[in-house]
Amino acid sequence: MPSPRFAFTLSGTDGAARAGTISMIRGDIRTPAFMPVGTAATVKAMKPADVRASGADIILGNTYHLMLRPGAERVARLDGLHAFMGWDRPILTDSGGYQVMSLSELRKMSEEGVSFKSHLDGSAHMLTPERSMEIQRLLGSDIVMAFDECTSFPATREESSASMERSMRWAMRSREGFDAGEGHASVSALFGIQQGSMEADLRKISADKLIDIGFDGYAVGGLAVGEGQAEMLRVLDFAVAMLPADRPRYLMGVGKPDDIVGAVERGIDMFDCVLPTRSGRTGQAFTRNGPINIKNARFAEDQEPLDPACGCPVCAGWSRAYIHHLVRSGEILGAMLMTEHNLAFYQALMADLRAAIGEGRLKAFADGFRARYLRD
Amino acid sequence: MPSPRFAFTLSGTDGAARAGTISMIRGDIRTPAFMPVGTAATVKAMKPADVRASGADIILGNTYHLMLRPGAERVARLDGLHAFMGWDRPILTDSGGYQVMSLSELRKMSEEGVSFKSHLDGSAHMLTPERSMEIQRLLGSDIVMAFDECTSFPATREESSASMERSMRWAMRSREGFDAGEGHASVSALFGIQQGSMEADLRKISADKLIDIGFDGYAVGGLAVGEGQAEMLRVLDFAVAMLPADRPRYLMGVGKPDDIVGAVERGIDMFDCVLPTRSGRTGQAFTRNGPINIKNARFAEDQEPLDPACGCPVCAGWSRAYIHHLVRSGEILGAMLMTEHNLAFYQALMADLRAAIGEGRLKAFADGFRARYLRD
Repeated sequence: MPSPRFAFTLSGTDGAARAGTISMIRGDIRTPAFMPVGTAATVKAMKPADVRASGADIILGNTYHLMLRPGAERVARLDGLHAFMGWDRPILTDSGGYQVMSLSELRKMSEEGVSFKSHLDGSAHMLTPERSMEIQRLLGSDIVMAFDECTSFPATREESSASMERSMRWAMRSREGFDAGEGHASVSALFGIQQGSMEADLRKISADKLIDIGFDGYAVGGLAVGEGQAEMLRVLDFAVAMLPADRPRYLMGVGKPDDIVGAVERGIDMFDCVLPTRSGRTGQAFTRNGPINIKNARFAEDQEPLDPACGCPVCAGWSRAYIHHLVRSGEILGAMLMTEHNLAFYQALMADLRAAIGEGRLKAFADGFRARYLRD
Repeated sequence: MPSPRFAFTLSGTDGAARAGTISMIRGDIRTPAFMPVGTAATVKAMKPADVRASGADIILGNTYHLMLRPGAERVARLDGLHAFMGWDRPILTDSGGYQVMSLSELRKMSEEGVSFKSHLDGSAHMLTPERSMEIQRLLGSDIVMAFDECTSFPATREESSASMERSMRWAMRSREGFDAGEGHASVSALFGIQQGSMEADLRKISADKLIDIGFDGYAVGGLAVGEGQAEMLRVLDFAVAMLPADRPRYLMGVGKPDDIVGAVERGIDMFDCVLPTRSGRTGQAFTRNGPINIKNARFAEDQEPLDPACGCPVCAGWSRAYIHHLVRSGEILGAMLMTEHNLAFYQALMADLRAAIGEGRLKAFADGFRARYLRD
């Protein structure tokens, strides 16, 4: 049986939470899923085979970074992002909308899109829904994200509404632009992004417009922008149920392990975040008992692994004392080992969540996880 | 049959060149051997298993760096350098003599040794032959290097003679200090270091004094200090034959691939150099057709591997275009892949040299290698 372009099958539910599988041509994605971030065609400090070995079924690439360097047309000439970086499983690419606002210079927003100058070399660029779809097609993305505007936070109701409405017009143009890329649209999927800031009625308008357009999956956008965990979970309490139950729901840019647990309890199926990779490079290791800063002097002669409850290759092979030494010395191997462990921690958490949902014991697992992880 | 503490067996000779095996408790070392440099308890940007997979039988650790961070006593409390870093095969440690002169601050030399301040935190330290032996014992080194003074270059005949004579007195103190560490001396080996700058008569005096003391192996020190390849090979033409034929000969800090080929032709058995690792991190890749700078714009869309004649995992998996992108972007994976390839290149060269010696065709191999490698 050939792999479908895109199919989402639920294997179990537990309250609002769901466990399932997204099937795509390049492979299956077990949900709830965590997608490591591979910004510039690399999950930083990791070989693709080690990313896969950590349990990742899919990674994320950043349109903004890749369009600037090495350039989307160049990646296409080099046979696409998968061949370029040596990752043959699914890749989700964001639309560039979020990062053009946070990273670029001299931005100018209009109904057409965003013109900006590169933070790398000052060169002038324009991102529109149509160009974002074209770039993601040139990259060979498996899951393409609609081009939207991530509403700033805090925002007035009027700002939130106007921003959401523009994103919905861009969602329609994204759909049309995606569908026009025939060879790509027949093998990849397009996700819409709900906006509406922290307002239930705006979120509902956004969801209905997206459903009317029709997407393979639906993302919750505009969260993890500084509102805090409690507010984020409050929004998820009403926003998630507005999205179709038979489609994957993706919470963009989230998050801390306890953020993920709370969002899974509320029905989210997919996550991405730079936290395990970025914080790993600066010395934060995730453990079942909460994060630790491996640079702390108390680890200088600690013979335990980063997380004694972890079964990853890093915890099997090296001590906290050694990794403390590496990170304090600025050694590349320190970044490599910290990243590998942190990604394994995140993937083990997702596997635990999937198993708990499948066995109808998510609340007990989540409460137990929080009691240990947040005890300090 | 238990592994011997130290045995050197020749399996073939070709002119002055030799192929053989050093057998030690932690494993065999095929010679001519290249030892990757693991300065601070890590071969930079490499996991130990990947260092081994590249073909390395032994790595080098730097006494100067390790005594300052994490500290020799600390490494001993953490069960030694092998357990600390996860490398279970032989490790050679240098004596610290060379690097204390090139890296530390406020050095003060005396007959006793060298007092200095750490380049890391300004703390005060003293290195003597006895302390160097103690540090290398605390690290758990398999091959310990005598503490010497690397004669500066250029030096007058008087300076060269006086420096060599001091190194020979320190060689005797190193021998005594090493032998006093009973538990360690019974499982590890001690190498002496010939000095005498570029002068044949001084080199002969040095060799005779070392042979009189008696060592497991003999290093040629004081070369690769700026004299150039032609002068280095001229010195090797007389210096190597002064050392015992039945003991390994180690040319410290060498070198470029063509340096190694020339030194093997003159009877050298062991090498170490930071070149494949350090230059890899800054973009120099070694190929059978000479080194290339992967950051050069001409590689931006080059789909060939770093070296089309290479069988390493990096050349099997990624293109020059991809690695060009990584290195230009400052990505850690760029340093990882460049290092892995360069170490594989060096180890493949050593394997080729060993095979050529074994089959009595070293001159043809060496001439062919140079014709291709140096053709530009």
